[in-house]
Amino acid sequence: MKKLINSVDTVLSESLDGFSAAHSDIVTLGPERKFVRRATLKPGKVALISGGGSGHEPLHAGFVGHGMLDAACPGQVFTSPTPDQMIAAAEAVDIGAGVLFIVKNYEGDVMNFDMAAEMTGSEIAIVVTDDDVAVETSTFSTGRRGVAGTMIVEKIVGAAAEEGRNLQDLKALGDRVNSGTRSMGVALTSCTVPAAGSPTFTLADDEMEMGVGIHGEPGRRRVKLASADAIADEMVAAITGDLNGAGDAILLVNGFGGTPAMELYLMYNAARSRLEKRGIRVSRSLVGNYVTSLEMAGCSLTVSRLDAEIARLWDAPVHTPALRWGM
Amino acid sequence: MKKLINSVDTVLSESLDGFSAAHSDIVTLGPERKFVRRATLKPGKVALISGGGSGHEPLHAGFVGHGMLDAACPGQVFTSPTPDQMIAAAEAVDIGAGVLFIVKNYEGDVMNFDMAAEMTGSEIAIVVTDDDVAVETSTFSTGRRGVAGTMIVEKIVGAAAEEGRNLQDLKALGDRVNSGTRSMGVALTSCTVPAAGSPTFTLADDEMEMGVGIHGEPGRRRVKLASADAIADEMVAAITGDLNGAGDAILLVNGFGGTPAMELYLMYNAARSRLEKRGIRVSRSLVGNYVTSLEMAGCSLTVSRLDAEIARLWDAPVHTPALRWGM
Repeated sequence: MKKLINSVDTVLSESLDGFSAAHSDIVTLGPERKFVRRATLKPGKVALISGGGSGHEPLHAGFVGHGMLDAACPGQVFTSPTPDQMIAAAEAVDIGAGVLFIVKNYEGDVMNFDMAAEMTGSEIAIVVTDDDVAVETSTFSTGRRGVAGTMIVEKIVGAAAEEGRNLQDLKALGDRVNSGTRSMGVALTSCTVPAAGSPTFTLADDEMEMGVGIHGEPGRRRVKLASADAIADEMVAAITGDLNGAGDAILLVNGFGGTPAMELYLMYNAARSRLEKRGIRVSRSLVGNYVTSLEMAGCSLTVSRLDAEIARLWDAPVHTPALRWGM
Repeated sequence: MKKLINSVDTVLSESLDGFSAAHSDIVTLGPERKFVRRATLKPGKVALISGGGSGHEPLHAGFVGHGMLDAACPGQVFTSPTPDQMIAAAEAVDIGAGVLFIVKNYEGDVMNFDMAAEMTGSEIAIVVTDDDVAVETSTFSTGRRGVAGTMIVEKIVGAAAEEGRNLQDLKALGDRVNSGTRSMGVALTSCTVPAAGSPTFTLADDEMEMGVGIHGEPGRRRVKLASADAIADEMVAAITGDLNGAGDAILLVNGFGGTPAMELYLMYNAARSRLEKRGIRVSRSLVGNYVTSLEMAGCSLTVSRLDAEIARLWDAPVHTPALRWGM
């Protein structure tokens, strides 16, 4: 295992210390590193809290700040945070308007956020994201997995929360954005969880995992490495086959951590032309490492439907460590 | 070679097409893909043009936009752009106030930018960056190499150009920022140039290249993989030993493309504490993939001295595909 670390046991804590120091203008690290929260809360606003296993950075802590999350709870690598983390986060950032949990659909995460919701004194609503069209159930999920589309839900609901909307409105909006969002990924290499010390899975030099999950879970099938165009053909067909109808959309080409920007932009080019042939107009774009799987090589495509309201909320100012525009 | 590509010959062109489509609000691709330029030029401003071999994305095209570059000329992967590219770029973005070339110190780049300067009708000044303390001369350079510190020069000089300063002032400022900037890198893995098809160099499973260049050129020595703290010790000692005196600084922890954000923040944590023990106060921070070497695993540290003027210019608004704040 080749990693820039000191000890397997302290990877997360040292990384969080660095993160909170580098972005101290935006975030603060909570006691016992249970959560990362905004340095400054906005009076009257519903609090948005997300979280999940670490190793997907910048998701979620990189999206704490104006226009997105109020707090994020980092679990160990690829391991759900524990309920006490979400309870502590809710206590820290709920200023009376309630709390919306945004949770990726994995059994551990859903269970732990549900438990936290029952145990905290805050009024809670939960949006569960499940944008991955690759498989219907998987290693860690009953039903579809929540993957890169989660950051789109966080951005759009985050913008609406800044406008002062109430908890039930935000819950409905989050569910609506999730239901208009589809993703699919491909892995060219595995990743190595520090505590495991060896790759999560193995691929031959000429193989790829089509439909891979963000923890290296199996996808649809393992096949010979194909061209970017052939990969885009399959992913776009899977996404658009499930997301009926034409219209405007966000296209997110998300790197899993080990793929250069050159390749991500090349995939963007391939995906965009294929979407437009199917009547999906790409009017907003995001290309980069946003929802990663440590150093895995590969990428996912996410398409998220836009209407006038969602487009306005997407364009609204955001000021977080990993996403910043308009302010 | 495992890459998301269609053909080795079209990697760059397809990637540039994707890049310019994804960021059409900010940039436009020039004829024959010779350069990427701002979609909208600012009257009266000195034009800033950079460029170099591709494979270091987001450097340089990702830094075209308000507050940084006016144009960037992308060469083939790890290959200097040709003079006709810089000439075409200068013709496109020089609106009468002259052009500043910002060039990383590699023989091919310096020669081609010099030739372009002689052949174009524009008034030209040149800043050559050479921030890498690892080695004094290298495979492609006479004198120190220009590496991640280049993006700091581009940001600070870019902000000054927006203020309407003249060409000679900007040249002097660029030289001053470069002279206060030092970097050093480490590689845990090699990278593969698409046209070559095999790794640029090889490292054993327990080895790293200390002082590596951004094209995979040799550094100071090949040694056994060490802890993040031990790596930070050596890099910070090399940087501060060459950059005398205490004071405020920017700390950039730059990923080479294949290293997860978790590890970069962990390195930031290690580097920051070591710098502060040596009297360097880290008052501005940047952590991420900014000057990459395709999918190489590893990172570089860059320390750049701040005075009140440089801090103000660093903080000034910037709106480019890869760096955005304050607007």
